[in-house]
Amino acid sequence: ITAVVSSEDWHFAPLVIVILGASGDLAAKKTYPSLFSLYTSGLLPKQFKIIGYARSPKTILAFRGHVGKYLSNDNDKLRFLQNCEYINGQSYGDEDAFRTVNEAIQNFSPVANKLFYFAIPASTFAVSAKTIKNTVSGEGWLRIILEKPFGHDLESCRKLTESLAESYNEESLYRIDHYLGKEMVQNLMTLRFSNLYFSRLWDTQSIAAVLLTFKEPFGTDGRGGYFDKYGIIRDIIQNHLMQVLCLIAMEPPVKLDGSSSDQIRTNKVNVLKAIEAIKFEDIILGQYEGYRDDPTVPDDSTTSTFCALKLHVNTPRWEGVPFILKAGKALDERKAEIRIQFKDAPGASFMFDSPCPRNELVIRLQPREAIYIKTNVKTPGFSSQPVQSELEVDYNTRFGASDSKTNPDAYTRLILEVLRGRSAGFVRKDELEEAWRIFTPLLHRIERENVMPQIYPQGTRGPEHDVKVEEWGYLRNSEYVYYNGSVVPKSKI
Amino acid sequence: ITAVVSSEDWHFAPLVIVILGASGDLAAKKTYPSLFSLYTSGLLPKQFKIIGYARSPKTILAFRGHVGKYLSNDNDKLRFLQNCEYINGQSYGDEDAFRTVNEAIQNFSPVANKLFYFAIPASTFAVSAKTIKNTVSGEGWLRIILEKPFGHDLESCRKLTESLAESYNEESLYRIDHYLGKEMVQNLMTLRFSNLYFSRLWDTQSIAAVLLTFKEPFGTDGRGGYFDKYGIIRDIIQNHLMQVLCLIAMEPPVKLDGSSSDQIRTNKVNVLKAIEAIKFEDIILGQYEGYRDDPTVPDDSTTSTFCALKLHVNTPRWEGVPFILKAGKALDERKAEIRIQFKDAPGASFMFDSPCPRNELVIRLQPREAIYIKTNVKTPGFSSQPVQSELEVDYNTRFGASDSKTNPDAYTRLILEVLRGRSAGFVRKDELEEAWRIFTPLLHRIERENVMPQIYPQGTRGPEHDVKVEEWGYLRNSEYVYYNGSVVPKSKI
Amino acid sequence: ITAVVSSEDWHFAPLVIVILGASGDLAAKKTYPSLFSLYTSGLLPKQFKIIGYARSPKTILAFRGHVGKYLSNDNDKLRFLQNCEYINGQSYGDEDAFRTVNEAIQNFSPVANKLFYFAIPASTFAVSAKTIKNTVSGEGWLRIILEKPFGHDLESCRKLTESLAESYNEESLYRIDHYLGKEMVQNLMTLRFSNLYFSRLWDTQSIAAVLLTFKEPFGTDGRGGYFDKYGIIRDIIQNHLMQVLCLIAMEPPVKLDGSSSDQIRTNKVNVLKAIEAIKFEDIILGQYEGYRDDPTVPDDSTTSTFCALKLHVNTPRWEGVPFILKAGKALDERKAEIRIQFKDAPGASFMFDSPCPRNELVIRLQPREAIYIKTNVKTPGFSSQPVQSELEVDYNTRFGASDSKTNPDAYTRLILEVLRGRSAGFVRKDELEEAWRIFTPLLHRIERENVMPQIYPQGTRGPEHDVKVEEWGYLRNSEYVYYNGSVVPKSKI
Amino acid sequence: ITAVVSSEDWHFAPLVIVILGASGDLAAKKTYPSLFSLYTSGLLPKQFKIIGYARSPKTILAFRGHVGKYLSNDNDKLRFLQNCEYINGQSYGDEDAFRTVNEAIQNFSPVANKLFYFAIPASTFAVSAKTIKNTVSGEGWLRIILEKPFGHDLESCRKLTESLAESYNEESLYRIDHYLGKEMVQNLMTLRFSNLYFSRLWDTQSIAAVLLTFKEPFGTDGRGGYFDKYGIIRDIIQNHLMQVLCLIAMEPPVKLDGSSSDQIRTNKVNVLKAIEAIKFEDIILGQYEGYRDDPTVPDDSTTSTFCALKLHVNTPRWEGVPFILKAGKALDERKAEIRIQFKDAPGASFMFDSPCPRNELVIRLQPREAIYIKTNVKTPGFSSQPVQSELEVDYNTRFGASDSKTNPDAYTRLILEVLRGRSAGFVRKDELEEAWRIFTPLLHRIERENVMPQIYPQGTRGPEHDVKVEEWGYLRNSEYVYYNGSVVPKSKI
Repeated sequence: ITAVVSSEDWHFAPLVIVILGASGDLAAKKTYPSLFSLYTSGLLPKQFKIIGYARSPKTILAFRGHVGKYLSNDNDKLRFLQNCEYINGQSYGDEDAFRTVNEAIQNFSPVANKLFYFAIPASTFAVSAKTIKNTVSGEGWLRIILEKPFGHDLESCRKLTESLAESYNEESLYRIDHYLGKEMVQNLMTLRFSNLYFSRLWDTQSIAAVLLTFKEPFGTDGRGGYFDKYGIIRDIIQNHLMQVLCLIAMEPPVKLDGSSSDQIRTNKVNVLKAIEAIKFEDIILGQYEGYRDDPTVPDDSTTSTFCALKLHVNTPRWEGVPFILKAGKALDERKAEIRIQFKDAPGASFMFDSPCPRNELVIRLQPREAIYIKTNVKTPGFSSQPVQSELEVDYNTRFGASDSKTNPDAYTRLILEVLRGRSAGFVRKDELEEAWRIFTPLLHRIERENVMPQIYPQGTRGPEHDVKVEEWGYLRNSEYVYYNGSVVPKSKI
Repeated sequence: ITAVVSSEDWHFAPLVIVILGASGDLAAKKTYPSLFSLYTSGLLPKQFKIIGYARSPKTILAFRGHVGKYLSNDNDKLRFLQNCEYINGQSYGDEDAFRTVNEAIQNFSPVANKLFYFAIPASTFAVSAKTIKNTVSGEGWLRIILEKPFGHDLESCRKLTESLAESYNEESLYRIDHYLGKEMVQNLMTLRFSNLYFSRLWDTQSIAAVLLTFKEPFGTDGRGGYFDKYGIIRDIIQNHLMQVLCLIAMEPPVKLDGSSSDQIRTNKVNVLKAIEAIKFEDIILGQYEGYRDDPTVPDDSTTSTFCALKLHVNTPRWEGVPFILKAGKALDERKAEIRIQFKDAPGASFMFDSPCPRNELVIRLQPREAIYIKTNVKTPGFSSQPVQSELEVDYNTRFGASDSKTNPDAYTRLILEVLRGRSAGFVRKDELEEAWRIFTPLLHRIERENVMPQIYPQGTRGPEHDVKVEEWGYLRNSEYVYYNGSVVPKSKI
Repeated sequence: ITAVVSSEDWHFAPLVIVILGASGDLAAKKTYPSLFSLYTSGLLPKQFKIIGYARSPKTILAFRGHVGKYLSNDNDKLRFLQNCEYINGQSYGDEDAFRTVNEAIQNFSPVANKLFYFAIPASTFAVSAKTIKNTVSGEGWLRIILEKPFGHDLESCRKLTESLAESYNEESLYRIDHYLGKEMVQNLMTLRFSNLYFSRLWDTQSIAAVLLTFKEPFGTDGRGGYFDKYGIIRDIIQNHLMQVLCLIAMEPPVKLDGSSSDQIRTNKVNVLKAIEAIKFEDIILGQYEGYRDDPTVPDDSTTSTFCALKLHVNTPRWEGVPFILKAGKALDERKAEIRIQFKDAPGASFMFDSPCPRNELVIRLQPREAIYIKTNVKTPGFSSQPVQSELEVDYNTRFGASDSKTNPDAYTRLILEVLRGRSAGFVRKDELEEAWRIFTPLLHRIERENVMPQIYPQGTRGPEHDVKVEEWGYLRNSEYVYYNGSVVPKSKI
Repeated sequence: ITAVVSSEDWHFAPLVIVILGASGDLAAKKTYPSLFSLYTSGLLPKQFKIIGYARSPKTILAFRGHVGKYLSNDNDKLRFLQNCEYINGQSYGDEDAFRTVNEAIQNFSPVANKLFYFAIPASTFAVSAKTIKNTVSGEGWLRIILEKPFGHDLESCRKLTESLAESYNEESLYRIDHYLGKEMVQNLMTLRFSNLYFSRLWDTQSIAAVLLTFKEPFGTDGRGGYFDKYGIIRDIIQNHLMQVLCLIAMEPPVKLDGSSSDQIRTNKVNVLKAIEAIKFEDIILGQYEGYRDDPTVPDDSTTSTFCALKLHVNTPRWEGVPFILKAGKALDERKAEIRIQFKDAPGASFMFDSPCPRNELVIRLQPREAIYIKTNVKTPGFSSQPVQSELEVDYNTRFGASDSKTNPDAYTRLILEVLRGRSAGFVRKDELEEAWRIFTPLLHRIERENVMPQIYPQGTRGPEHDVKVEEWGYLRNSEYVYYNGSVVPKSKI
C-alpha cells in the first residue's frame, strides 16, 4: 500500500493539518496517535506540518510535550514532533487568530493541501467553518474532518448541515463514523462481492435474519452527563449500527474504488430510503441498575442504556428479512458483531428426524476480529446425528491482527482516506438525514411520553428480550457453544 | 450411540462371527482390531463368539496368540480372546469342516445371529457362499461381508454377482468399500443436507468443478504383483473415488436413516446411470519412474500408477460441471481430498479491478480430517485489495479427532453397521455394475492398445496434468498458500 | 409416432386382447372405442384379435353388433369388427371357459402377445388372474390391465395386491389411473424439465402454494349407490389428484423414457413417502343439498361429495409449501386444473406503492386444455399501475386439440403404452400402498366418528372454504378475471 | 389516470406551450397531434395556450389551418385551435420576437407554467435557450423539451450540454428519446419487478443472451442526406436501443415513481458505467444495395445502414451475458423487439434424449405489441417428444391496443410526463455522455479507417451475421415457427 500511496499526487505536495480542539480528549486519544502512525508507516507526505489550535495559551514546546504523551516511543517520535506547532485564539470565530494560522500555512508553503480536523463540539462547527472560509487562502485542496454528533434529530441535523453548506460544499466535508474504519467493516464489501458463496446467499431467499450487536461491559462510570442527553439509540444505533447495516444491505456498486462517482454512498442512501420510520412496538428499552447513581445523571433519568429494535429494508433483496439492532452498556461482555442467520435447511428436520440448527455467519468486529459460519457436521464417530460446529478464520491466528501495523486503528485508516480524497468511507449529508428520518419520530415519542425503560442488572445480557427477538425471526441455538479455536470436551460433542 | 445401539434387538441376541481367511493379512490388520474396538466400546452383544477359519491347522491357543498380536494392550484383551475359537478345513468348499463350524455355532447357541466375514480371495467367494448355504443352519440372521475386488470388468463382475446370488440374496450381502467408513465421507450427507448454505450452492449454478484426489507418497515397495494386474483405475478410482462421487452428486433421500428403503443406494445408482462411459481423450495416465524395478512387476509393464480423468453427471443438478478424479502412487504427499470449486463471483473482477480467486470447499478425508472454504477477504490493514484466506474446521483441533475413540477406524464403523443391519453404507450389485459399465470400455481399450503411460519421477505431483485439468474447468490458484492454522508471515499477506 | 411404433418388435407379433367384462359399461365406453382408435391410427399390429369374455351367452355377431354401437362410423369399422370374437363362461373362475379362450388364442397364433383387460369388479381380480394363470399358455408376453378401485383402505389394498401377486408378478400388471393418460398430465414432465424457466422456479423458494382442483357440475343423478360407499376422497383425491401431485412434486428422473428402469415410479413413491398422514384439522368436508334425495343413497348418509385438504411434501424442494387438493360434485362448473401459485415478487408492493398480485401458473386439464401464467403488466396507456393479465397457450387455438386425432382419449393413450410395455404411466403397488397410508387414518376417523360434512347448495363453489384455503397459503386474487382469449372491456382494465 | 392527473397541482394552473419550429415536420407530425390527444382526453389544464414560433410570417388563422391539417376530425378540434396563436421572428436569437412571446404569455396569465418545445435543429438549442432566459419572465415553472441528435460524439455532446447548462439547469431540460414513450418500454419495470417469475430469472444464472432488434423494411427513400451523416449506429443504436438496454439491465429502484429522487436515471447510468467501449471486432456493418443510388447520398458513402454488435454489462447480475444490438434499414420486415434468451434447461437433452430448444422471452415493441415466452411442451397426442410453442399475451387481442385511446402515441405520453414533472422517462446528461463514451472510439475508428460495410440486398435479413451472433451466444431455433395466435397446421406439430 505504501507503494501505491506514495505514487499518488497528493503525496508529493506539502500538507498542513490544523487540529481545532488541540487540547481536547479526542485529539489526544485519536488524532495525534493516528497521524503519528501514518508518519511512521511512511504514508504522510515528506513535507508536512501539524498546527494545533485551541483557546488555552500554550508554548509550542508545551504542545509538543502534550502531544508526545500520546505517542508510542519510537525513534521517529522526535522528528514527528518537530513538525508540530501551536496557535491559540479567543474562540472558534476569532478571525485574527485564524489569520495567524493562515500565515503559518503560507510561511510553510504558499501552495499546500490543508486538512482541518474539527475535534471540537458540534455547536462550533458552523462558526469554525465560516471563519476558515474568511481567513484561509492559498492553492491546494482544503478538507474538513467532522465528528459526531451531527444533530440530535432530523431538524437539528438539517440546520447543522445547512449552516456548514454556507461555507463549504459537500465534497470538502468528511464526516467520520469510526465504525467505517474498522477492519471488518471495511471488509464487508470484499466479503460480499468477491466471494460467490456469500454473494449468492445474500438475500431474502437464504437469509432469515440479520442481527447487529454492540455490547459494553461497563456503564457511564461517573461521566454520564453527555450520554444522558443522547441515550443509546443516538449514541450507537442511529449512526454506527446503521452504517454497518447499510454496508450489509446495499446493492453492489459498479466499482469498489469509485471515489469520484460516489456510488457507494448513493447505494447506502438507497438502503435507508427503503426503511420506514421505526415503530414503537418494535423496540425494547433498558436502563441498567445503578445508572442514576452516576452523579452526573439526573435522579429521574429515563434515558435508555440498552435498546434492541427491529426494522425492515423494503427492497427486493431484503423483503421480509428482519434487521435486529441491539446495543447496551453495562452488559456481560465487550463485543461488536454482525450475525447473518440463514434460513432452515429445507427438509432437513424431516430427513434427519431431528431439528437441524440454522447456519449463521458471524463477523466479529471486536474484540479479536474473526469470521465464522456455524455449520452442522455429523457428530464425529459412530453417531449419524448432526451437531453444530463452525468454520472460522480468526484474524489473530491467521493474520497476526493483534499487531497495530497489520491492523491499524480506525482513525488512522480514515485520516489516510481523507488525504487520498476517497470519500466513500465518510457519511454524506443525505445519509445523515435519512438516518434521522428513520429514528426521529421514535425518539420524539419516547421523549414526549417519557417512556420508562426496563431496569436490568449490570453484567447481564440486558433486559428480557430473547423471546421478542425470536418473534422477530432470529433463533438462538442454546445448545451451541463457541469454543474459540479450542478442542470441544468430549462430553459436549 | 452406545445407548442407542444397546437398545436394538440384535444386541440382546447371541452373535457368532466367522472369519474366513483367519490367518490372512486383512483379518489381522482390520477385522480383529475392529472387532476388539467394538468390544471395548460395549457395542458387541454380551454373548458373542468369534470363529477363525482357515486352511492351516492351528490350536485355539495359537490362534488367540495370533489375534492378540494385533490388538492394543488393554485390560479387556484377555476376556475378548476367550471368545475366540479356530477351526481349519481343506478348502473353502470343505463341507465337513463347515459342518464343524455349524456345530460350534449350535453348541454356542441354537439361536444366534451369524456374520461371515470373507477375508479371502474373490475367486473363493462363490464356493464359500455355497458351502455355507449347504451346511450352516439355525435361527437368526446370516450376513456376509465381502471385500473388493468385485471383478475386473463388467462381465467378470456380473459373473461373480450371479454366482453369489445363487446362494444368498442381495439383502444378506454387505460389500465393503472402506471409503464409505471414513468420518468425512459419512459426513457428506450431513454437510450437504443439514446446512442451508451448502444445500443452496450444490449445483451447476454455483459449482465450477469437483475434484477428487487420492495421493500416496510411496510405490508398490516390492509387492507390486497384485497391483500390476489391476492398476490405479481399478484399485482406487473405479471404486473408492466413484463411491465418494456418488455421495457428492446424489439427490437428497427422503430419510437419511432409511435402512429398509434402500433409497440412498438407489439415488447413488441414479448418479452412475447419468454418467456416460469415460472417453479415452478425457484421461491422463502415468507410471512412476522405477515402478518396473519392483521384482514382482513385469519388465514391460504398462500398468498405470497415476490417473487423472474427467467425467460428467448428466442430471439437471450437474449439467456442465466437470468431475475430475485423480489418484496416484509415489507422489509428493499422502492425501485424500474432495475439492468443490465454486464459480467466479460474478462481476467481481470488474468491481475490484483485479481478478478474484474462486471459492473452494475442501473436505480433507485424510490425513487429519478438516473442512475449509477458501474465502476472499480484504487484505488486512490499509489496502483494499482482496486476498484469499480460508474458513476452517480442523477435526483434531475442534474434536480431538486424532483419538481413535472419537474417530474410530472405517472397518470398525462398517462392521457395526452390518451388525445393525444398516445397508446404506455398502455397495449394492447394481452400483457395482454401473461403475464397471462406465470404466470397462476405457480399460479394455487401454489393454487392447497397450497404451503406454507417461513416466513421472517419484515424489512429484505426477505427470504433467495441470494444463489439462485447467482445460477441464478446475483452476488452481497458485498464489494461495494453505497455512494449516498457523499465522501467515506478513510478507505473504 | 406411427413410424416409431411400427418399428417396435411387438408391432410385428400377433396380438390377442381378451376383455373380461365384455358386456359391461367400461368396456363399451372406453375399451372398444380406444382399441378402434388405435386401429384406425395404424397403431395395432397387422395381425390382432379381440376376444370378449362375459357371463351372458351371446353370438359373435351379436357381440360385434354390441361393440359396433360404440364406435364412430368409419370405413374401417367393419374390418375392425371382423377381428372380434366372443366367448362366455359361468364365472371368472370358470377354467373350462378360459381353456376355450386359450384354444381360440392358439388357433389364432401359437405365438402371440396377450393382453387381458379386466373390465370387471375388483372382487373378481384375484380369481380371474389365477384362472388365466392355470389355463392360458403359449409364447409371447401376457399383460393385464386393471382398473380402480384398488381397495378402500391400506389393509384391503394390501390384500388385493397380495392375491394378485400369487399369480402374476408386478411387471405384468398395468393399473390404470386414467388421469395419467390426459394430455396435460403427460405434459407435466416436459413442462418441468425441458423449460429452464419452470425448472428453476419449481421449489419452495419460488412457489407459495400448489392447488389441484377437480369440479363437476352434476351430482350422482340417481346412481349414487356406488359413490356413497366410497365418497369423494376415495373417488377422486386419493388416486387421481394424488397421482397428479406426484408428477408435480417428484424429483427429475435420469431418463424420461426409462421403461425398464422404473425410475419415474420410484421417484413418485418417494414423494408419497415424504407426506405424513393427513390431519383431521386440515380438511373441509361438504355434501351437496339433495344428495340424500338420490334413491340409491341412504337417508342418513354422511358421505362427502366435496373435500378440500392440505398436505405437505417434506423434501428439500417442497419444505413449507402447502399442497391443496380440492374435489367436488354438483358444483358451479366442470373443471380440472393445476394451479402453481408463486410467491410475492419481493419488494414489489413497496416499489409500486400498491399490492402486486401473485403470479400463478395454471394448467387446465379439462375442459379445453390450456396453460397460462397470470402476469402483471403496466396498465396499458398513461397509467403506470400494474394490472394482472396472462400469458397463455390454448390447446384448441394453438394445436386444434378439440380434434380427437390430435388429442386422443386417455384410455387410447394408455392402452398403447401397455402394448409398448412402457409402465411409467401406470400405478405400482408401492404407490398404491403409500397413498393409502396417507389417507387411511383420516378415512377411518371420519367413518368411526360419523363426521357430518357441511351442506352446500348445488351449483355453487361448495361449502365455505376460501378463508381456510387462504390460511393454508393460497391467495385468491378476486380482482382478476380470466377472459379466455377475448379482449378485456376497457372499463375493466 | 384522468382522475389522478386532474388532482395534481399543475392541472389547476394556466399553461403555455411554446413550440419553436412551429412550421416544421416534427411539430406537425408529433407535437400537434399529441397535444390534441391530451386535450381530448381531458389531460390539459382548463386554461392553456399554444404559441407557435417560427421564422416565416403567418397569420394566426393560417397557423390554425396548418395545425388543423394534422389533427383527427373531432368535435373538439375547433375549440382546441382557438387556443393556438402564432408569432414569428428573425431567428432563434431574436430577442424582440421572444419578448413578444413573453408579452403574449403575460397577457394570457401573469402566473403560468411554461413549456418550450424545441422542434428545431440542435445547432439552435443553445441560442434559443439563452434568448428565452433573457426574455421570458413570470411565475410558474419553465421547462424545455429537446429532441435528438444530442451531438455526434462524446465531445460534441459535451459542448451542447455545457452550452445549454449556461442558461438552464438539468432539472428544466427534458430530452426526449421517444422509445421511452412506447407502451412496452414503459412496461419493462412492471414486468421485471412486479412478477416474481421474471425477477427471479433476470440474471446471468438464467439468461444466456439478450437481443435487441430494430428492423425497417424501407431505405432512405431519397431523403438520405441527414441519415448519411449519422449512420445507423447514431440513428438507432447509441440512443434508442441503448435506452432500452438500460431499462432491461438496471438494478431495481427503491420506488418506481420517484420523480424527485432521480433514482431510476442513476441506476441507468450505472448500467452504462459498467459497459466498456465497444470493440471493433464485436460489430458487423452492412449497407443495403442501392443505398448510394439515393441522390442525396454521396456516391462513395461508407455509411452503415445495418449494424449488429455485442457488448457486456460488467455487473454481478450480468457477468458473461452478451447483449446483442441489431438495427437495419431496407430489411425484410418492420419490427422492434426485445429477446431475452434463457439458458438451456440443465440436463434436459440427456433426459429427453433429444435437444430441447431454449426458452425465450420476446417483448414486441412494434408493430402489434405482445409478450410471449417460447416454451417446450410435449408434442400433443401419442408422442412424448418436446416441441416448442409459446405462452403469449397479444395486446390487440387482450387489451384492444390498436385503439389510440388505449395505447396513446409515445409523444403524447412523454409530453404528459413533462407536464407532470416526472423526469424519469427523459435522458439525463450523464446518460448521454456515458452512451457516447461507449460508442465514440468505435465511431471514430470507422470514420478514420473509412471502413466499408458489407453490401446486402434490400428486403433481406441483412448481411450475413447469424454465425457471428451464434458465436456471441444467441442461438436461433430454426425449427420454431411463430403462428401469431393461429392454429399450427398438423403437419408442423
